[in-house]
Order: sequence, then structure tokens, then C-alpha cells
Amino acid sequence: MNVRESGDFRERIRQSFARQAAMETIGAELTRVEHGVVEIELPFDVKLTQQHGILHAGVISAALDSACGFAAYSVIDADASILTIEFKVNLMSPGRGERFLFRGEITKPGSNIIVADGRGYAIDDGPAKLIASMTGTMMVVRGREGITG
Amino acid sequence: MNVRESGDFRERIRQSFARQAAMETIGAELTRVEHGVVEIELPFDVKLTQQHGILHAGVISAALDSACGFAAYSVIDADASILTIEFKVNLMSPGRGERFLFRGEITKPGSNIIVADGRGYAIDDGPAKLIASMTGTMMVVRGREGITG
Amino acid sequence: MNVRESGDFRERIRQSFARQAAMETIGAELTRVEHGVVEIELPFDVKLTQQHGILHAGVISAALDSACGFAAYSVIDADASILTIEFKVNLMSPGRGERFLFRGEITKPGSNIIVADGRGYAIDDGPAKLIASMTGTMMVVRGREGITG
Amino acid sequence: MNVRESGDFRERIRQSFARQAAMETIGAELTRVEHGVVEIELPFDVKLTQQHGILHAGVISAALDSACGFAAYSVIDADASILTIEFKVNLMSPGRGERFLFRGEITKPGSNIIVADGRGYAIDDGPAKLIASMTGTMMVVRGREGITG
Repeated sequence: MNVRESGDFRERIRQSFARQAAMETIGAELTRVEHGVVEIELPFDVKLTQQHGILHAGVISAALDSACGFAAYSVIDADASILTIEFKVNLMSPGRGERFLFRGEITKPGSNIIVADGRGYAIDDGPAKLIASMTGTMMVVRGREGITG
Repeated sequence: MNVRESGDFRERIRQSFARQAAMETIGAELTRVEHGVVEIELPFDVKLTQQHGILHAGVISAALDSACGFAAYSVIDADASILTIEFKVNLMSPGRGERFLFRGEITKPGSNIIVADGRGYAIDDGPAKLIASMTGTMMVVRGREGITG
Repeated sequence: MNVRESGDFRERIRQSFARQAAMETIGAELTRVEHGVVEIELPFDVKLTQQHGILHAGVISAALDSACGFAAYSVIDADASILTIEFKVNLMSPGRGERFLFRGEITKPGSNIIVADGRGYAIDDGPAKLIASMTGTMMVVRGREGITG
Repeated sequence: MNVRESGDFRERIRQSFARQAAMETIGAELTRVEHGVVEIELPFDVKLTQQHGILHAGVISAALDSACGFAAYSVIDADASILTIEFKVNLMSPGRGERFLFRGEITKPGSNIIVADGRGYAIDDGPAKLIASMTGTMMVVRGREGITG
């Protein structure tokens, strides 16, 4: 019995995250997986910055999209996959900090379309600071060649 | 006389792009700079992929945001800077291909708010394939500490 | 033979538009229907304004959504329908003018998901002024009860 | 002493809402005003529908934009105004019901840019049903001719 059949969404998400090479490239870790909620964390790294020395909006989008996508993935059948159709990101404060936390949560489940919302936080000594939000629309995909897991 | 005073937006954009470490991390090159139009190109690299082996949506967002942001930067005063407030990305086809081209263009100039639209294409032997679009809202920033260039 | 079977998308769109009571409420007319492009026009009316006397963003959204939705409708099978999943609207200039023109166009056709882009213009004596843009994601719906035309 | 100087944001919002003719046109009422939170309610009316007999997305956008805009308005100085720069709306369930409730809340306050999130619900005999969400970006405007209140 393989994990896809086992219904263990936590293990399937861990395996799928491990195959997202882009997450390794940006140094992201999967730190929380619940039914409908996924968190990804990222230490600051100068290689992820834009010209003002803060986290590039694309890096923030990458982490939020993965968090939202895996949150969607946690609520679908083991033989289905998730593709992002679109998302919107608001950048609310500069991405400065030692670490960053990105949380994706399901707002509206569905058999074809899932809506997820994400928030990104900068973490230093003080309280976490909201730096960005995402609303993403995900499509549940079944039986499409090359799209599994 | 430094380039910021010279009014040479092409040189200012080249310098600012060179300071975007995230662009080097994803292997992006600045390939076209015109007044109101900027293009960025990217070879495919497995380190930029998501779990299905296609370009991660965050990488697409990074390149489109930089292209849109620099398109905005090309139409402002030499002493001002650009910050992205928000953007929306639609992912229309899987990011598969040898190379990718991302074009950002100004849709609405303004002294405070600039709206830019971007499109991303996969490039192989055949015709370029539209893979993604962005609409981004940029803020023109003047005299804010730490935000120059 | 009814119009839905006839493949005459122009006639189907005219009939569907006529059933959009909200379009009559805001005084909108369907003024152009092509394959992949639909235009809707609206005279200024004080009953459509927000507190500053300009067109309410919701009215702009209504006209752009209908234009984009019918543009999608023009490229699907006669027995399918269109539902809007989501859209983003940028408001670029105040909605002031004698008349307004809203154009929706297909950016990416598809059998399940269609992406459309729209632009809204204020029309007076001078050149048309861009007041708003939309990017919308539409779903092609077949065989869902209560969702036809 | 007039209300704008009095700092009574509730009264200023009530007066501003009363000047939004579009809200009267769609039959909307302002039902809750708190610091950072505004609610608007709407009875179902066939004149607000699209071709399938459900609430038109533009009507949903109108109510959510007003709720989000007035939520922003509740946290600014009495001599400033709010203009919507852009918003994204996700339509999650068909707008069917006897009444609809739209709530706007401040996610990120700011002296120039305010981000607000809104949710729309259909209300019948049973529990309220989430039909739509909005994320909107608002600009704080001061001293611009014709833009007060």
C-alpha cells in the first residue's frame, strides 16, 4: 500500500513538498500540516531579496502559494492533485526579519474549485508582523497526465 | 554626476536589477528596457519547479513582479523608487519550456500609483506560449529611508 | 430548432443579457458581440454613484463582469454556461463622463477555465479615458441544474 | 461644529453612505459601524440578478466595496477621504437567499494605503452561507478637489 492510497494527507503533503525543488531553493521548511491548514517557514537570506534588501515579492508569493496549495491538498481525495489557477497578493509591510512564517488556510472547500487564504509574517524578537496576504483559487485535478501528487 | 541624477532610466534599472539578488538566484536576466516596457528572461532550471516539474508559480510571480516594477520605475523621476502594493497572477498554462520571457508594461502612469500589466511566455521551438498574466499596483515612493533605487 | 442549438452565439448572448435584470437596473446596453469580444455601454446616471458623485466601483464591476462573462460565453458550446469564479478590478481614474464603454475580451480560452480581460472607459467630447481594468476567471459549466444560458 | 470635525466616524459614515446613491439603487442598508468594521445588508431583489436568477457579481462587489471602504473610512482622520484603488472578489456560492450580509474589516491600517477584507453571506432560515470574499486596497486622500466625505 502506498501513501497515496493510505489517505494520510500529512505524509502525502510532506512527500509533495519535498518534490517542490523551488522550496529548497528558497530554504523553506514545511512546519505544520493540519486538515485545511499548512504552514511554511523561511529564514531570511540575502539571496532572496529585491533591490532594497527586503524579501522579494516573488519569494513571498512562492511560500504563500505553496502553503495555500497544500492546505487545499489536505482536503482532497488521495488520487487528486491541486493546480493553482490564480492568486492575489497584498504586500503590507517590508519583508524584513530573521524568519518568516507563511500560513495557508481553506476558506471554501469544493470538489472542483477550492479557495484558500494565506498570511505571511516576519518574525523577530518582538511580536510577529503581518507582511503579506494571499487569496488563491485552486483547481482539483484528477487523471491529468503528468499531474500527480 | 551619478546615474540617478543623469535621468538615464536604462542604466538605473540595470543597476537596480543587479541589486535584486532574487533575480540572480532564479537565473533571470534583464533583456529589454524601454520607456514603460521591461522584459526579463529565464532559462528553465529544475531548481525552480514545483512538485509536477513545472515552474513554481512563485518564480513566475517573481519575474513578472520585477518586470512590472521596473516598467513602472522607467517612468518615474530619478529620485523616486517603486514599491509593489499588490498584484494578481493568473496561471494559464503549465510552465514548461526551455526558456521563459516575462514582459511588464505600464497600463496607467501616475504620480503616486502606477498600474502595470505583465505577461509570461514559455519559449521552445514553436511559437511562444502564454503561461501567465499579472496586474500589479505600484506605489511611487520618495524620501523613505532605506528605499532608494 | 431553438437558438441554443443553432450555434448562434450572438443571439444566445443577446437573450442571456436580456435576462440579466441587473443590467437593466444600471441602464446598460449590449452594443457589440464578436467571437471573444463583447462591449457594454452605460450612460451616466446619478443613481449609480458613490459619495463623491462618480460611478460606484460596483457598477463598474457589474458592467466589466458581464462584458468578460459574455466574451467567455461567445467561445463555448451552445449547451454550456459560464460562471464567474473571481475577478480583480483596478480603478484608475474617477468614473466621470457622459457615457461609459466596457469591453471584455478572451485572453485564454479553455474547456473548463477561461480567463478574460476587460477595460472600462469614460466617454465625453474628448478621447475615451481609461477608468478601470478587470481580469476575471470564468468556469465553463455543463449540466448543472438552474444554470443555463 | 460640524460632524467632520467632531471625530464621530459613525455619523460621518452614515452621512457618506446616504450620499452613495448606488446603495439606495440596490436597496442596501448600513446596519453596523464599528471602528474598523462595517456591515451592509441587502434584501434579495430580482432586479439585482444575472441570467441564472442569482445576485449579480457586480452587486456583490458594490456592497463589499462599500463595506470595505467605510471600514477604512472609520479609521482615518475626519478631514481625509477614501478611494478604492483595486479589489479582488471571489464568488464562492451562488447569491441565493432572502437577505445578504456584507462585512468589511480593516486588515492593515496605514496613513496612505489601507488593506481591507470583506465577506458576503446569504441569509435564509438556516446558517449564514459564505457567498463571496473581497480583498481591497484603499488610498487615503487629503485635499483633493471634489473628494470629501
